[in-house]
Order: sequence, then C-alpha cells, then structure tokens
Amino acid sequence: MTLPTSELTPDNCVFLMIDHQVGLMQFLSSIDPMLLKNNILGHAKTAKAMNIPVVMGTSWPQGPNGPTMPELKALFPEVDVIDRPFVNFWNDEASREAVRATGRKKLVISGLATEVCAAFPAIAALREGYETYVVMDASADFNPFIQQVTMTRLAAAGAIVTTWVSVLAELSANTQVNGQHIGRLLSEHMGQYQAAMNNFLGTAANATEVREGVGLTGNPPIPMAL
Amino acid sequence: MTLPTSELTPDNCVFLMIDHQVGLMQFLSSIDPMLLKNNILGHAKTAKAMNIPVVMGTSWPQGPNGPTMPELKALFPEVDVIDRPFVNFWNDEASREAVRATGRKKLVISGLATEVCAAFPAIAALREGYETYVVMDASADFNPFIQQVTMTRLAAAGAIVTTWVSVLAELSANTQVNGQHIGRLLSEHMGQYQAAMNNFLGTAANATEVREGVGLTGNPPIPMAL
Amino acid sequence: MTLPTSELTPDNCVFLMIDHQVGLMQFLSSIDPMLLKNNILGHAKTAKAMNIPVVMGTSWPQGPNGPTMPELKALFPEVDVIDRPFVNFWNDEASREAVRATGRKKLVISGLATEVCAAFPAIAALREGYETYVVMDASADFNPFIQQVTMTRLAAAGAIVTTWVSVLAELSANTQVNGQHIGRLLSEHMGQYQAAMNNFLGTAANATEVREGVGLTGNPPIPMAL
Amino acid sequence: MTLPTSELTPDNCVFLMIDHQVGLMQFLSSIDPMLLKNNILGHAKTAKAMNIPVVMGTSWPQGPNGPTMPELKALFPEVDVIDRPFVNFWNDEASREAVRATGRKKLVISGLATEVCAAFPAIAALREGYETYVVMDASADFNPFIQQVTMTRLAAAGAIVTTWVSVLAELSANTQVNGQHIGRLLSEHMGQYQAAMNNFLGTAANATEVREGVGLTGNPPIPMAL
Amino acid sequence: MTLPTSELTPDNCVFLMIDHQVGLMQFLSSIDPMLLKNNILGHAKTAKAMNIPVVMGTSWPQGPNGPTMPELKALFPEVDVIDRPFVNFWNDEASREAVRATGRKKLVISGLATEVCAAFPAIAALREGYETYVVMDASADFNPFIQQVTMTRLAAAGAIVTTWVSVLAELSANTQVNGQHIGRLLSEHMGQYQAAMNNFLGTAANATEVREGVGLTGNPPIPMAL
Amino acid sequence: MTLPTSELTPDNCVFLMIDHQVGLMQFLSSIDPMLLKNNILGHAKTAKAMNIPVVMGTSWPQGPNGPTMPELKALFPEVDVIDRPFVNFWNDEASREAVRATGRKKLVISGLATEVCAAFPAIAALREGYETYVVMDASADFNPFIQQVTMTRLAAAGAIVTTWVSVLAELSANTQVNGQHIGRLLSEHMGQYQAAMNNFLGTAANATEVREGVGLTGNPPIPMAL
Amino acid sequence: MTLPTSELTPDNCVFLMIDHQVGLMQFLSSIDPMLLKNNILGHAKTAKAMNIPVVMGTSWPQGPNGPTMPELKALFPEVDVIDRPFVNFWNDEASREAVRATGRKKLVISGLATEVCAAFPAIAALREGYETYVVMDASADFNPFIQQVTMTRLAAAGAIVTTWVSVLAELSANTQVNGQHIGRLLSEHMGQYQAAMNNFLGTAANATEVREGVGLTGNPPIPMAL
Amino acid sequence: MTLPTSELTPDNCVFLMIDHQVGLMQFLSSIDPMLLKNNILGHAKTAKAMNIPVVMGTSWPQGPNGPTMPELKALFPEVDVIDRPFVNFWNDEASREAVRATGRKKLVISGLATEVCAAFPAIAALREGYETYVVMDASADFNPFIQQVTMTRLAAAGAIVTTWVSVLAELSANTQVNGQHIGRLLSEHMGQYQAAMNNFLGTAANATEVREGVGLTGNPPIPMAL
Repeated sequence: MTLPTSELTPDNCVFLMIDHQVGLMQFLSSIDPMLLKNNILGHAKTAKAMNIPVVMGTSWPQGPNGPTMPELKALFPEVDVIDRPFVNFWNDEASREAVRATGRKKLVISGLATEVCAAFPAIAALREGYETYVVMDASADFNPFIQQVTMTRLAAAGAIVTTWVSVLAELSANTQVNGQHIGRLLSEHMGQYQAAMNNFLGTAANATEVREGVGLTGNPPIPMAL
Repeated sequence: MTLPTSELTPDNCVFLMIDHQVGLMQFLSSIDPMLLKNNILGHAKTAKAMNIPVVMGTSWPQGPNGPTMPELKALFPEVDVIDRPFVNFWNDEASREAVRATGRKKLVISGLATEVCAAFPAIAALREGYETYVVMDASADFNPFIQQVTMTRLAAAGAIVTTWVSVLAELSANTQVNGQHIGRLLSEHMGQYQAAMNNFLGTAANATEVREGVGLTGNPPIPMAL
Repeated sequence: MTLPTSELTPDNCVFLMIDHQVGLMQFLSSIDPMLLKNNILGHAKTAKAMNIPVVMGTSWPQGPNGPTMPELKALFPEVDVIDRPFVNFWNDEASREAVRATGRKKLVISGLATEVCAAFPAIAALREGYETYVVMDASADFNPFIQQVTMTRLAAAGAIVTTWVSVLAELSANTQVNGQHIGRLLSEHMGQYQAAMNNFLGTAANATEVREGVGLTGNPPIPMAL
Repeated sequence: MTLPTSELTPDNCVFLMIDHQVGLMQFLSSIDPMLLKNNILGHAKTAKAMNIPVVMGTSWPQGPNGPTMPELKALFPEVDVIDRPFVNFWNDEASREAVRATGRKKLVISGLATEVCAAFPAIAALREGYETYVVMDASADFNPFIQQVTMTRLAAAGAIVTTWVSVLAELSANTQVNGQHIGRLLSEHMGQYQAAMNNFLGTAANATEVREGVGLTGNPPIPMAL
Repeated sequence: MTLPTSELTPDNCVFLMIDHQVGLMQFLSSIDPMLLKNNILGHAKTAKAMNIPVVMGTSWPQGPNGPTMPELKALFPEVDVIDRPFVNFWNDEASREAVRATGRKKLVISGLATEVCAAFPAIAALREGYETYVVMDASADFNPFIQQVTMTRLAAAGAIVTTWVSVLAELSANTQVNGQHIGRLLSEHMGQYQAAMNNFLGTAANATEVREGVGLTGNPPIPMAL
Repeated sequence: MTLPTSELTPDNCVFLMIDHQVGLMQFLSSIDPMLLKNNILGHAKTAKAMNIPVVMGTSWPQGPNGPTMPELKALFPEVDVIDRPFVNFWNDEASREAVRATGRKKLVISGLATEVCAAFPAIAALREGYETYVVMDASADFNPFIQQVTMTRLAAAGAIVTTWVSVLAELSANTQVNGQHIGRLLSEHMGQYQAAMNNFLGTAANATEVREGVGLTGNPPIPMAL
Repeated sequence: MTLPTSELTPDNCVFLMIDHQVGLMQFLSSIDPMLLKNNILGHAKTAKAMNIPVVMGTSWPQGPNGPTMPELKALFPEVDVIDRPFVNFWNDEASREAVRATGRKKLVISGLATEVCAAFPAIAALREGYETYVVMDASADFNPFIQQVTMTRLAAAGAIVTTWVSVLAELSANTQVNGQHIGRLLSEHMGQYQAAMNNFLGTAANATEVREGVGLTGNPPIPMAL
Repeated sequence: MTLPTSELTPDNCVFLMIDHQVGLMQFLSSIDPMLLKNNILGHAKTAKAMNIPVVMGTSWPQGPNGPTMPELKALFPEVDVIDRPFVNFWNDEASREAVRATGRKKLVISGLATEVCAAFPAIAALREGYETYVVMDASADFNPFIQQVTMTRLAAAGAIVTTWVSVLAELSANTQVNGQHIGRLLSEHMGQYQAAMNNFLGTAANATEVREGVGLTGNPPIPMAL
C-alpha cells in the first residue's frame, strides 16, 4: 500500500516539470491539447502562488520535440531549464542535483510523455526513498491505452497518481490561510468552476463579499487564464 | 493487500457524507447528475434504514458550491451539517470529532468532488488506522479521467473502493433479519430493479407473498424514490 | 428535406405513447433505465400540463413485456390503454382511430422498442400524410447500435427526430403564457437543471420573485419528480 | 426522403444473404463475432419461418474469405450458393437473375463486408427501381468508423437501413396470424428476450397459456438457438 | 439535398449567437466547458475580424441561466444583447428584426442548448427561405445523445451543420486577402495548431517571414487567447 | 502482491457459480446478455470437461431474480442448487460447507451481480486463507462503472481477477493430456475462434488430422454451443 | 437522395488528394496517424494500379502544415503538386483546371482536414454538377466530433461518403480483369486481411495456385506496404 | 509494491516473444491489427538494435493459430522458434531452458493472447524470482475487457506492465551512447513521431545536423518501417 507519510505542503515538496515542449504537445493525443496546456499552466501557477521550487527539463528541444511551452517558461523566468542527454531525467546529474538542492523529499512530477519522461524519474526516485506524486492530467501520452498502462505501472511501483486540482487542493489546506489560491486558480483553469463562479457573481446576493474573500475585488469577471 | 478485518455491519461503521452541495452537482460531470442524486439518496437512506450514524459537511455553501442537496438534508433533520474552513474534512477539528464521537472504526465516505472531498479524509483516516470505504458512485469528479486517477490512488492507499449498492448489500447480511431494506431500496433507487420488481408484481404467481416479504403490502407499484 | 409546416403547439398535436411497459424497460439497454423512466415521465407530464391528448398502447402485457409503467398509467387515469394484436400500432384499427379521433395531424411518438413500436407507426403515418415527431430519448432499443440505425432510418423517411426537452420547449412558445411549465418540468426531470435551480434559489438575491415566476411559491426546493 | 411504398410482407420481398463466409467473420470487427453470427442466424430463420425466398452468394470461398458459415448453409440445403467473379453481386448475371426470378421488388440485403458486399448491390438495385433494405446488424465491417460511413452513404442513396429484429417484426404484422414467429425467434436469438421469457415462464401465473401461445408447449425452457 | 447557393463571405452572412450564458455553460455537458468557451470565442472573433454583424440574445439571464459569458460580451460592446420572453429566438419580434435589419440571407447560428436555442430559430428561418448554418461546436447540449439527435434533425431540415473552424476557413477564401485571420485565430483557439505554430517558429528556417505573413511580427510566441 | 502459490489444476480447485439466475441476466447490463450467457456456459463446461466440483447457489429465485439459467442447471443435474437467506454466500452455512467438503483451497468464483454475489464470498474466503479467482466475464454488474470499481476492489483485496478463457487455458496445462478441451471449448464458445477453426477446417490441407487431433473427427463443422 | 448515375470505373474518375502534408498529419487526431498514413497510401496506390489521374495540392507547405507526405509524393513523381493561396482548392484556377483537364465528371476527394480541404471543393464541385465522392478514412479532422459534423454536412449536400477500401472494390469490378489489385492492395494495407492472407498461404493446400491467382507467385509472404 | 531493482539495460534482460502468429493476429481484436503488427516489429527491432537475446515460441502453428508473423521471423533468422505442447510457455522445458541459458533475470514478455500466452509465463517466472515486464501493446486479447482484466491481474501479481516505446526508451539510457536507436525506431514505428520528424526535416533550420545525429544522413525522409 502507498500511504503517504504526510500531506503535501508548500514547504515539503518540489515540482519537477519535465519536457513540456510544444513539439510533444502537438502529437501526444491522450488528451485534448488545449486541456493539456490549461492543466500544465494551472499546475505551474500552483507552484508560483505557493512559492514551491520548480525544476524544469527538456529533451532534444532543437529537434522535433521543440522548445518549452513559451507561457510555461514565462512563468518562471528565474528557473534554468536543464537540457539533458539522458532519456531519464534522474540519470542526469545536473537535473538530479537541482532536485536534491531543494532538500525536499516529496517530488510532484509531470512530464511529456508520461510513460517515459514522468514515469522514469518517478520510479528512480522511489528507489532512492523519495515520495513521488505523478500529476496525470498535466502529462500526456501517445494514446489513451499507453496512459492507462503507465498509470497502472506507476501505482504498482508506489507512486501516488494524482491530478493538478488535487495537488492544488492538498496544498491549500486551511482556506483561511491560503484558500484564495484554490478559488482563483480553479476559476482561471477549470472551465466548469469559472462558469459557476461567474454565474454566482452575476446572481448572488453576497457577490461582493465573496469576490473580496478570494482576492478578486478589483476586476470581475474572472477570465480563464490560458 | 487491502483485506478488511470484518464485514460492514450497522454497528461498526459511520457514514461521512461530505459536500453533497447542489452547486457542485451542477458541474461535476463524471456521472449523469440525476444518477448521482439517486445514488446519494439511496446511500443516505441505507444509513437511515439501518440506524447508522451520519456525519455531514459542507465547503463554501454560501458561494458557488451552493447549499446541501435539500432532499439529503431533509432525510437527516437532526444532523448538524458542519461547515469548515479546511479543504480536508479530516483537518477540521469539529468534523473529525463528530466522527470520533461515534466510536466506530470503519468509515464509509462519499463526497463531491471525489478527488478532494472524499479522497483526502479517506487517506488521512487510513494514516490513523481507520478502515475506510469510498463509495465511488455516490461521489463525482470534474471528468471521468480524474475519477479513474482518484480510484487508482485510493485503492493503492489502502481504501476500499465500493458502490452504494454493495454497501447496502454488505449491511443487509441475513435477508431474514434486515433483508427487506435491500429489496425496498433497490426497488426505489436502482432503475433496472424497480422495473423488474414491478414487472414481477404484475405477472407473477406468487406476487402477494413477495410483496409482503419486503414490506410493500400496502401500495403497489413501487415508485422510484427520488 | 423534412421541414415541418409549423411549430408544435398544444392545439395541433397528439402524443402517442406506445408500449412503455415495465418488462421492456428492464432489458432495453440503449439508455440507463432510470433516465429512460425519467424522460418518459417528463414527456408525459408535458402532455398533461398543456392538455394535449394522449393515446396509449400495449403489446402482450400479460407476457414478459409486462404491464404499463404504473406511474405513467397513473398520470392518465382517464386514458384507455389499448392492447393490440398487431405489432404495428398503426395497423390496429382501434389504436389508429383513437389518433384520428383527435383530428390532429402532428403525431409526437415515443415507444419501446424504438425500432419497432415507435418507428413502424411513424413510417405508416408518414405515408398517410401526417407530420411525425419521434421522441428518441423517451424511447429505447436493445442496444445503442440499433438505436443509431433506427434514428437514421426515421430521419431518412421524413420523421422529425427529437427529444422530450425539445418538445417541451417547442410547445412552451411564449414563456409569459405557458413558460412556467418549462421551468417546472426541467427542474423536476432534468438533473442538471434541478441542481442549477436549487443552487440559484439558495444563493440568488431575487430568488423569491423567480420562484413565484415559475409557480413554485409554496414549496422550495424543487424535488426531482420521479 | 425514403418512404417505402408499403410494409414488408412475406409475399413481397426476397432476402439477399451475401458472402457470410467464415473467413470474413474472423476479422470483420465492427461487431462481436458471436453476436454477428447470432444476428445472421436470426435473420436467416426469419426467412425460413415465413417462406421468404433467399439468394446466397460467395466471394473467393477457396481463399482466405473461407466457406459459407456452415450453420447458415445448413438452414437452406435447397439454395444454390452462387460464387461469382465480380465484386458487386449485382454485376453477376447469375446472382442478379436469381433475384429477378423471384419477381419481388423489395430486396432485404445483408452481407460481409457491408461497405462492399451489401452496399454495392443495394445501390445498383436502387438505380433499377427496387426498394432495398440493408440489415445493418446481420452485416459487418473492418471497423466501426467504416460501418458509420457506410450507413450514412446507404441512407443518402435511398436504401432503408434496418436491423434483423425490425425486419422480423415488420413481417410479423398481425401477431394472431404469424406472431408466434416473433416470440420464438426473439427468444432464441435476442439474449435479453430469452432471459426475460425464461424468467417469465419460471415465475408467471399464466406461464402455460403463454407458452402454448407461441408454440413452445413441449419443451420449456427456450434455449438460445446458435 | 442541402447545397448552399454560394460560399459564405463576410458580406453575405450574419452571426446569431444565442444564449451563451454562464449558467448554461456550467451544466451542458456534451462538450468540455473549457473547449466550449474556447470555440465560442474563436467563433466570435471570426465575426469581429471580418466585420460580420452579430445578433446576440439571452433567455432568463436573471435566473439560473445566468448572464452572458463576460468575455463574449466584452468582444462586442456595441451590440445590444436582446433578452426575450420567447423560447424561440425567431418568435421574438426584436430579435428577428435585428437579423432582418442586416439584410443578409445566410444565418450562422450558435446557441445553448443546441436542441432548443440554436435549432428552433434555424428551422423557423429555413421556413422563411433563409440559408442557415448551425455551428455545432460553438453550441452544446445536456448530453451527447441529445446533440446527436439534434444534429440529425437539423441536417434533415435543410440546415447546414458546421464547425467554427470550417466557418472561419470558408470566410477566409483567398489567404492573400484575409488569410492572416485564419492563421491567427487557429493559433489562438485550436490547441494543436498553436503548438504546431510555436514549434515551427522555434525551429523553422523561415520562421520570421512566416510570422510576418500572419501579422505576428511583434510578439512571439502566440498565446492561446481564452 | 497477489502471486498464486501454484497453477490451477483440475485437482486443486472448486468452481462457485453463484446466482446465475435469468431475472438477473435480464437487467445486468455491463455486458451483452448473450455474451454473458455464452461465457457462463463456457466456464461451466470447463468444470464439466475436467471433473472439477461445482457449488451453485441462488438468491430469491421465486422473486424477480428468477430461476437459475436452465442450460446451466441442465449441465449439472447432480448438483443441488443451494438457495440461501444470506446476501453473502459465505455467510450461509450450507453453501460454505459445500465448498469445504471438496477439500480444495482454490476457489474459482463467478456470480451475478459481481459486486455482491461474487465479491462478497471472494473477500470472506480470502480472510480464511483461501486463494480466490474471480471470473470477471462470467459475472456481470448493473453498469460498467460498477464493474470497474468491483474489479479494483477485488484486486486490492488479493483476489485474482481472471476470465473464463484464461481459467480454461490454465487448467489445460499440457495440451497433449487435456488439450482437446481447450480446442473444443474455444471453438464452441469464443466466436472468433469458432470462425477461425471452421475456416481452417474448410481450407487446410491437413484438416483431417487436425480434426482428429482435437477430437472432432466425427462431425465438422463446430457449432457454437449456446 | 444521392444515387450515383453509374459505378466508379478507372475511366470515369479523377482522384483529388489535397493537403496530405506531414505537419497536418502530426496533429489531426480523429484517427491514429499510422492508420491515416496507411489509408492514404492504399488509396493512392489504387489510383496508381488502375491508371487513374491524380491531382495533388498543398496549403502553406513552408509553414507548420509542412511538406507533402514523402511516400505519397514518391508514388507520383510525374504529378505537379499545386500549392495555392486559396483555402478552397476549387477557388484556385490552376487546381480546378488540373481537374477539368482530365475531362472526368466523378471526383474522388480526400484531404486534410476533411472539414475544410476535402469538404469545400466537394461542395463547390457539386454546385457545378460533378459527382463527388469523399474518402472519409483517407482524410482526418482535429477531433472525432468535427469529423462527424463534416460527414453529416457532406452527405446532406449530395456528396457520396465512402472509404478507401470501398473505392478500391468499386473500381475492381470484375475480379477476373483487374481483381488482382484488390487482393494485393488489401493484403498490403488492411491489417486484418494481410494476417488472413498470410495465414491462408501458410496453411492452405492450394496455396500455390491461390498465390498465382493474385499475382503473388514470386515472393510470399505479403508484407504490409507502409 | 512492484519497484524494479534496477533499470532495464541491454545487458540485463531477455525478450520473450510468444505466439506472434498470423492466425491469432487475425482475430484478437483488442487493438487494430496493423497497430499491433507495428508495435510487435518496433519491439522486435529494439532487441535487434541493442543486441538483446530473444526467445520465440509458437502454439499450434499448423492449426488455425497459423505460422509466426513472417516479418518477425525474418528479423531473427538465427533464432529457433520453439513450438511447444504446453499452453504455458514456462511449463515447456525447452522454452524455459532457452530463457535460463541467457543467464538474465529480467524478462520482457509479449504474447498473443496476453491473458494466456504472456500472462502465464510472467506469473510463473515471478514465482521463481525473475523480474518480469509485460509489453501490453505488443500483445493483444480477444476484446478490450479481457485486456483490462489481464492488466489488473498482472500488476497485482508483481509484473511490470509497460509498452514497447517505454521499453525502448528505458534501454536507450544515455542518448549520446545509444540514443540514435530511439530516434530511428520512433520515427519508423510511431506514426505521430514519424510525421513530426519528417515535418521537422522539411522545415527546420538545423535539419541536417539533426539528421546526422540520429544516423539518418543518407536517406531522408524516414519511412515508416512496417
């Protein structure tokens, strides 16, 4: 059984965002590419909002895999994206050291393609005693069957499979402390929630106080933030 | 392996029904909303029929998540629905205490959305040694893929994934003692069974004794009970 | 092309509800049986609310097809359900005369199974110059492929394929005249809409006037009406 | 619009059963092969029961397409299966003459693969003024998308797409005359109906008279007849 | 057959965007709500880019249907959104006159829900001799089956079913004249195309001239424009 | 991990076939009812062919669940079908004793519905140290999602999920000893294999010796054996 | 109704293969890209084998759409691929003239994306009286829903929707004349058929004569020909 | 939990390719047969490229299962394909010894059908302490549900479920050492990647150096290698 020792908090984890490159996003078709992009950005902003360290990597960016998604790169201008000659991120000394330097033992991993770029470092890190979370919907595979095989393999290996919303929620803990993040990020990146929020703000008696509660006082409505 | 120490009985479990709020029911689309409602009510009536304690919670009911489903609330007029500032039900002292006060070690959990509201307390309670059951079809997620990820995570963590009918059946044990519940609740909330029962009552040789056996003597046919 | 000569109104149509028998509802699996039942009742109440004549039939009710769905029968205590020896409703003199007696030229047909009980009278009536509408989601087939074949055949024959909500909406015309029906029936029989309405009533500033507008003043919330 | 001039009757149609060869049944995967076989036999027995003439053909039976399904051949020992050098059945003089010799103007066509063996003669015969019915579920294609394209093409060309149960039902007309066929054949070849019938016979008050009514007096229960 | 008399051009059509309200977007689940929003905006910007007149409507915006999607409203500050008491947009004098005032005979219609808000005016306008296009993926329904029924009904009635990308492409005609719109709008609103374009710009030999050709000189990369 | 201590052999296992009743087969729709019936019979004949003991049970056969599938009952005239008042087969003394009397520690379980009738005894027996196999495709559930939840629960509990063909193959071991069973039973009950075999027998040079090899010398072709 | 005036023959049609460019093949995901490529090649070789003229076009090959699929180009070294500034192939004088120069009135069209590159010229040519066939599986769209909308639009407009195998078969007519093409091309490009053929050649008594019959005497087995 | 002790390397594993016979490929329909063939060849070439030993087996090749896929056999002219009388490869002394002779403890298994031919030796070898990997997409089953059951069983037993691309990538380790294999094999056997590579080579500024980097200098473009 894979029971994490504790909850994710902004202080105990690091995000590994591996090979979110536009070439790969073109043709990995286990998920609509626009939803994939949205999930990647929602996940990245979670790190940004909560000051969680991020390690980023690329694989053959000058080839058909293409450069890192520009909007993702733009979110983290201070992060060096580490290009590596190894397929497995964890076999690359510079990449692995960037993770170790954070001193954190919980790794929250997403990558393209999941079966390789996310799964390989997840499994390698498990062997070294890390707790690993794989964000299945900020990752993608060539087709849905490969995705299903990969998820089964990861869960059996002891990785915690999860989603970007679940990670955001787990990190949000007490909504009175950092709960505004969950409200804002869901509104920006979860289509149903944005519609619900805008509808609520348009009809609710107490919309203003709600708006202030989630730090949205200045500018209703809440636009989707792709 | 996740092998429960014993069967569920009306005396050894408590139902946690978390955030079954109408706003969430509008847009969680991993299941048709009418089937979701039906399953929630079938599950709730199981507690009612067998005198199983129920703890209920809400998250931001004055916001877009909306109030608790009215029919659910009406079933348990005596239960205080605990609104909490924490994302995780188990991190909220009042909610957790309501569970502890029952003295029961088997938790039967359902919640909206499954990936957060059901999964988080399930995992937290597992860490504290509770046996947890997650009622997957009285819960729902933003989309079917999230639901699949969540189920995989829960099973790996040691939670028992189950359904409202399976819980009802496990609690019914000897049909001569409390078997009338299973007949009545299936007839009210499982479409195929209701049709089968009404067909049977309309054509069977021994319809009358069957009707009496499940406590339906007075009023055929059996209406669906949404 | 199949362009109806005019809109459906309560005065120009008759509903043919054919073989909605509980035996058939057990095993026609192109749709969840609870959703099927809900759609049949939503459709039937549309007739009731707008005083549209209804003709009902059965086929072998004393056999495995079983009796008419009791809730449906209960809605129309004054309607004689015509049992017939013919497969095709339209070949049965009594059934056909019941339709002709209404003097209406637009037939709104639903039936179990669609491929036989709805499709055959629809095609026969088209040959006699009637305009026919087939309510696809208040009907059902042995499996989804048969349903798809049937819909293709019906559309090619000149029948208008439609849904119970679309029929309700077309009949509602000016919401200031009979618009309260559409609000109430959607709230009772369309799961998403009921959740939306209850959420709205729970949070909206102007809930009371809305409630009055749709004739719901007395008893919020709006229960699903299965 | 494709409105047939009249209903199918045992006297006005001929069945064309084209290339139901075991080699093709191995690999045409738009439908489970056991269901396909069942549907073909149910359709063939419909002709048998109602004395409808049948014309049968093959294409390259000594090659990978293989011989005619033996059970199908066995049903019609008197019918010559016409092997032809032409892809299109209708371009083969012997095949076409076998149809013309029946003097019937309604062709009920099934074939493997639908896109070629059923569709080509259907379209050719439409050009010559025949009314054609294509039995979609007694036919099959390499994959479901091809099946969908084929059905769209056929409906647009004026062919009536249908199913083996719908054909059986249309031919059964007055159940007092030849209605026993529909009861027996559904019981033998439609899984849900067989289960329903056996359940009914096992529990119903009036089982005996029903059994006699459909000519099943001697041997309950009704076995599926593959 | 439904063969349009001519191609769509910016001068011969008007867009009807009906009931794109946030309440409806919450619960119409035939399409992911974020994709729906994206398609609606891509379609709306097509009108904006090509100076095509737009008529907008709402239905019960003060109720659970909610206000018009704010981003859509913001695109057309000069357009009066016409709220109407009629279910059918075409039955509302003000709405219909807004269309007639444009003098155009080709109507490009999208609406929520498709089966009612898009389909009813499409059919009514066909009766008056307009050519109507229904943009299926900038519209949505309660579930996918309703969407399929609606598309079948619309095509049979003589409406042209289409998509927002197809409309954009048909209007773009000669890419040397207004081809920059198709490049830019696809890049902003079709996920695969945006990834392809950014990948191309990152690796191609002739990236600069391509960028200039579609009016993107200043600011690579091309962000998705939700 | 669930690694069985040894392979299944005809000498080390007993088949539990629980509640294969025609009423349940009518409406459990996670699988086509004809395929379900076929799989049940293929599984039952495996026991028959290899002299494996079978224990059979029923639940409420005089009610809507109906009598045991007649063809199944007919295969085992000597087996007493044990009707029980308990939901869980394992809680019924007579049923449990019938299993214990066989002295075997590997239980091969199938049942309707899987989530209750197969899963409950499987879990109970695991607690007592039995090795349990659940034959997922000779069992069925109300819908596919329940089936998926049930399979996840069973695998987590330590049950081995399997299929009727896999059980047959595992028992067949050395094809020179009892390999004729696998050839014959696959030919009778796996549609693709029957077509393949008949095609092979029709075209192969060595048909006769092959036919003899699988004990089919007397009567080609091989009919499907429902 | 869309009933073609005659069958396709090698002498009466021209193939339009529009925008089969590798950039588009990367991200049009209504079909697996390898199957798409296979179907395109199977279709192209049909033209080659039967000496049918081919007109080829591209759209923005120096941009993200990329160059024509190299294997396709290599099949027709003598064909000039016409690059055009117009979205609609039919609006480009050079493209249209290339078609007209063939003097043929039946156009067999495939293109990427179907909704634009195949559909627009198909509709334009229908307006000018051509008979048009759209090869749905040698074409592709951004997603399956767009493909479904496009097929519905095309069928309604009077285009004949078809598949590459159906076109091959219709052109093969008398298998004694040009039947070797259908055997060879199916074996090379239809996976199931290749497996069947290789299996047959491996086991059949008459392998040699069969092999000679389809012109494959020299080199068994038949490799798939991507 | 199933955490492999180390990564796959060309030196620590052996590939077991079991029963990849053309008869089985005809009718195992959990995957398109052309994709299956492609995956099998991509997997086989991985062994070839990295000098990994391969053990091959067959089951009843002279019967309907047919001979080994010829292209696969041709890749390994030096490998003896071991035909065995046992269903389970691991029960056959010669087969098992062929594996043992390699001295390797990591088994990479693929087979037709997965539920028998791949799963049985995987489970048997796990009992003897081998680490086993099952290549799910170079294997296939009678239908997708059997495939899902099999994957669940295998993961629970401690086998590592994986895909041919994941195996290739894991073996490629440092792309500077043997990375050219991954580039070439993905280009030959993963449709999206081939399109991406050809598109890149056609438009990229640095195409030449990339081409040289993966050993493709001589012959652009890269053909799919079926």
